[in-house]
Amino acid sequence: MTGVLVSHYCNARFGNDFIAAARRVGVEPELLVLPPAPEARMDDAIAARAEAAYFSGDVFPEFSKQFFSATRKAPGLKWLHVFNAGVDHPVFAAILERGVRLTTSSGSTAEPIAQTAITGMLYLARNFPRWLAGQRNHKWDPMRSADFPRDLRGQVMLVYGLGKIGMEIARLARVLGLYVIGVRRNAIKTGHVDEIHAPDKLSELLPRSDWLVLACPLTDETRGVVNATLLAKLPRGARVINISRGEVVDEPALIAALQSGRLGGAYLDVFAQEPLPADSPLWDLPNVVVTPHNSSASAGNEARVNAIFLDNLRRWKHNQPLVNEVTKL
Amino acid sequence: MTGVLVSHYCNARFGNDFIAAARRVGVEPELLVLPPAPEARMDDAIAARAEAAYFSGDVFPEFSKQFFSATRKAPGLKWLHVFNAGVDHPVFAAILERGVRLTTSSGSTAEPIAQTAITGMLYLARNFPRWLAGQRNHKWDPMRSADFPRDLRGQVMLVYGLGKIGMEIARLARVLGLYVIGVRRNAIKTGHVDEIHAPDKLSELLPRSDWLVLACPLTDETRGVVNATLLAKLPRGARVINISRGEVVDEPALIAALQSGRLGGAYLDVFAQEPLPADSPLWDLPNVVVTPHNSSASAGNEARVNAIFLDNLRRWKHNQPLVNEVTKL
Repeated sequence: MTGVLVSHYCNARFGNDFIAAARRVGVEPELLVLPPAPEARMDDAIAARAEAAYFSGDVFPEFSKQFFSATRKAPGLKWLHVFNAGVDHPVFAAILERGVRLTTSSGSTAEPIAQTAITGMLYLARNFPRWLAGQRNHKWDPMRSADFPRDLRGQVMLVYGLGKIGMEIARLARVLGLYVIGVRRNAIKTGHVDEIHAPDKLSELLPRSDWLVLACPLTDETRGVVNATLLAKLPRGARVINISRGEVVDEPALIAALQSGRLGGAYLDVFAQEPLPADSPLWDLPNVVVTPHNSSASAGNEARVNAIFLDNLRRWKHNQPLVNEVTKL
Repeated sequence: MTGVLVSHYCNARFGNDFIAAARRVGVEPELLVLPPAPEARMDDAIAARAEAAYFSGDVFPEFSKQFFSATRKAPGLKWLHVFNAGVDHPVFAAILERGVRLTTSSGSTAEPIAQTAITGMLYLARNFPRWLAGQRNHKWDPMRSADFPRDLRGQVMLVYGLGKIGMEIARLARVLGLYVIGVRRNAIKTGHVDEIHAPDKLSELLPRSDWLVLACPLTDETRGVVNATLLAKLPRGARVINISRGEVVDEPALIAALQSGRLGGAYLDVFAQEPLPADSPLWDLPNVVVTPHNSSASAGNEARVNAIFLDNLRRWKHNQPLVNEVTKL
């Protein structure tokens, strides 16, 4: 029997499926189920039996403390699988330091996040803010030729970070007629971008970029990389999309560039401080769309994450390489 | 010399280019320029010299009366080219009845219109109305699993009318993972839809359709085709996108289906009466996006329309088949 820490919701919803699926691949799990109330803590003796732990999407944020409290009471914990892709929170560094293996669900939300980013782009590019302002006022006020927005075809998008999310954004943008420049630490061959460059070329690529899309993980290399100097290299009217992490951008510099009218707009799902403070100027800036770190929201995520977890459970028990293993933060 | 009626704006902006381009293909045009004020009328003697007329985008709507007043004073008018694609307005039937040939700019706005329709779809599918309501209230209010919208991948879109606009909508929807059913009078082979059917199958296709997209021209066949009976065949929560003509839909029936919650939302660019009356319930219905018959707005349209006009000018003078000729309304 392999003790696997799971949430109350996860057990109620999928427990029997998990056990059946695991048995089919030669794993006999004992599901160690966290209590149903967020403030309740798992019994020490039960937590101590955990060898694996599944941080499923329902745990975040209300049950996160309960979950990690239990992992700290499991000296025999060897592997943690998480529902998300970005593991920049310090709790994950602590997990790795303990010698626990860590795998993510990278890719499970790439499609919805990319679709949300593209929605933000289209919304700004087609000038929906103007149309929706008219709608709120019951005002029929079509744009005439002089106000028409530029065609998207031929505009240049720079995608900073070409993981699964960035790659899907690039793919969709090219299908819409944009010219796409990818920036990535390790060059790869892909038909989804027109050019690919290393991160140290970012500064010289920005003057060509109508759209700067941030799709990188938060690392020492990316923290604060989009600063005032780089933002000033974007052409006048350029727009920024951030669905990665707020800390990648110097947020005051971004706000200043938007307020001055140098930048033409932004779609932001992530912020330096979350929840975004109620007095942030970002809420009310024209042509700025704010969503609450929620771009991945999609009903299919749960099944995709469960599938990655179960695949990794099999791999882990059979000493095969794990999918989406993170070894360094 | 071939007398060509053009607007004041068109002559000021493109007159020399037109003459140069026409000469290169063996046409010697005399541009007959309409007066700069909308209420002014063209001199009868000048109008009488018009053999061709170019209804450019800047003419509509302020100068439309001036323009068609001049065409009525041109007994030798043989050909009219129009900037738009939909020529259901009675003025065009009158042109054909006079024996004047009529060509449209069909295709010139297919890409922006399709992109606008897809923006409407993504905006509703990714639940931006909820996020933007939060933004207006400075409220950080992410959806949690229970509220997550369905994945777009696997949803079914029915595109009614597979001309250049409908085809581009279908292409983009498939790239986003939807299953696309096309409905078209004349079957064609295309990789952009998963199924293609004749219009008489519409009723039996609707129960499968999460999205009903209207991209047909307004004809005797399509007028009022989407009536209460057909709307009732859509699954609960289905959404309607209309970028064709308002008269294709029974608007009161659509409003009732939206108000009752049977339909999940709509993106509408066109209406039974335009401008949409200020007291229409459509302005304020939740999950309904209203734009002012403006989905085509894009700076590149003008150059695309000019190119079609100049190509047709050459064809017309050299007795070659015209592009986008309409012979029956």
